[in-house]
Amino acid sequence: MLYLIGLGLGDAKDITVKGLEVVRRCSRVYLEAYTSVLTVGKEALEEFYGRKLILADREEVEQEADNILKDADISDVAFLVVGDPFGATTHSDLVLRATKLGIPYRVIHNASIMNAVGCCGLQLYKFGETVSIVFWTDTWRPESFFDKVKKNRQNDMHTLCLLDIKVKEQSLENLIKGRKIYEPPQYMSVNQAARQLLEIVQNQRKRGEEPAITEETLCVGLARVGAEDQKIAAGTLQQMCTVDLGEPLHSLVITGGSMHPLEMEMLSLFSMPENS
Amino acid sequence: MLYLIGLGLGDAKDITVKGLEVVRRCSRVYLEAYTSVLTVGKEALEEFYGRKLILADREEVEQEADNILKDADISDVAFLVVGDPFGATTHSDLVLRATKLGIPYRVIHNASIMNAVGCCGLQLYKFGETVSIVFWTDTWRPESFFDKVKKNRQNDMHTLCLLDIKVKEQSLENLIKGRKIYEPPQYMSVNQAARQLLEIVQNQRKRGEEPAITEETLCVGLARVGAEDQKIAAGTLQQMCTVDLGEPLHSLVITGGSMHPLEMEMLSLFSMPENS
Repeated sequence: MLYLIGLGLGDAKDITVKGLEVVRRCSRVYLEAYTSVLTVGKEALEEFYGRKLILADREEVEQEADNILKDADISDVAFLVVGDPFGATTHSDLVLRATKLGIPYRVIHNASIMNAVGCCGLQLYKFGETVSIVFWTDTWRPESFFDKVKKNRQNDMHTLCLLDIKVKEQSLENLIKGRKIYEPPQYMSVNQAARQLLEIVQNQRKRGEEPAITEETLCVGLARVGAEDQKIAAGTLQQMCTVDLGEPLHSLVITGGSMHPLEMEMLSLFSMPENS
Repeated sequence: MLYLIGLGLGDAKDITVKGLEVVRRCSRVYLEAYTSVLTVGKEALEEFYGRKLILADREEVEQEADNILKDADISDVAFLVVGDPFGATTHSDLVLRATKLGIPYRVIHNASIMNAVGCCGLQLYKFGETVSIVFWTDTWRPESFFDKVKKNRQNDMHTLCLLDIKVKEQSLENLIKGRKIYEPPQYMSVNQAARQLLEIVQNQRKRGEEPAITEETLCVGLARVGAEDQKIAAGTLQQMCTVDLGEPLHSLVITGGSMHPLEMEMLSLFSMPENS
């Protein structure tokens, strides 16, 4: 049996009791290590679970899925994912491959940012399509996701923006030379995301378009959701450029236009001083 | 401290390790008993947690929140919610009331249908606004939620339909006579939801409107997500009228128009025979 087990969002103890029981009895336990991170590292998980974890980065999951699935028809293999196993597409891949090999699978769900974001007080059912904001480079500055923000705003829906993570990336030089030397991990902050958004807003104005959001649009920055030291700040997009939310992971919500009074009241718990 | 603790979706062991530790040391533990249900009852939870649970129905949470919060400034009180604590608005109420009383709170997240629905293979970030389908009566047959389905379809987004639950409802007669006699709980099935949807489609045709979905629209019925015996069936809306998914809780997804090949491949794992 292949078990896909969500680890939740905070630390080692955010695994479910059911998940922990499975981890402790599986013959091999993989930890997916590229779409998200907990506030603790692999060693802390290993200590708490009492099991060695095999790190599976993107390459391995995509290219060596057969290794992960080896003997899973006659023994139990666990594949651990930060958050919930079905936040990212790539785990569908693993499920499909298992199914083709005749290996049964089970999912042990957990919280992911896709539902835990509700802790800021915005109503979950009023979120529209989720977008990803990627690190811009000098030559690659995609703006197309902004259309989705616009659609959501037009329909009075909030937009959850997932912020880019770069883990085990190679520099162009190392890539060309075939050197497996990796850059330090990078996590996009709410500040960076807000600045990129404002640049898009300014670009649209330059082109004579009316942008769907402005410097004054109400946003919510979230950091380390689910951890003891989680931080939430509600303020304008302009304020998001400078708010200090500390360590990763960060997420950003762009609110829809109209809001329920309860949503406003909840957001006021996290509101930033006007001139900050 | 007030702890809002998600229980996840399946049974007693779907609580997180962190959540269980908190439950075991709180001075009082409430179980919210109206927005959702697990596949096991209160007694099974009490046995596994080793704690007595105080049932809190809607009336109590709304009218007697002060009882729930009593002494929570000097001791720890847990409020357990099936799924995640921020799926439903009413728990914002409790948080706001606690905050006004100067009581700190913490949330221990868990899976909810809002993210676990990803197990059917549809990509979570492509879900639009979530809708609720309520039980129709002879005199109350709301159709307004259908506009949201339409908007989602127009924007190529999937729609998660949460299906009505009636717990601790009084008949009109008992309500008028002030008798606290309650009807047996009712859970809407995917069949009922699909039939109501088709009736709306037919009503729109009668009025000369072009409905956003038809008998042939691809849908996904889900039952007992997260439980050992969960069932998923992908088929047309017409097929959803008769598919047998067994016991509650059920949810229904109306797919957006265009789909990613991986989504189609995942759905094929659950597809119903064409003439069923």
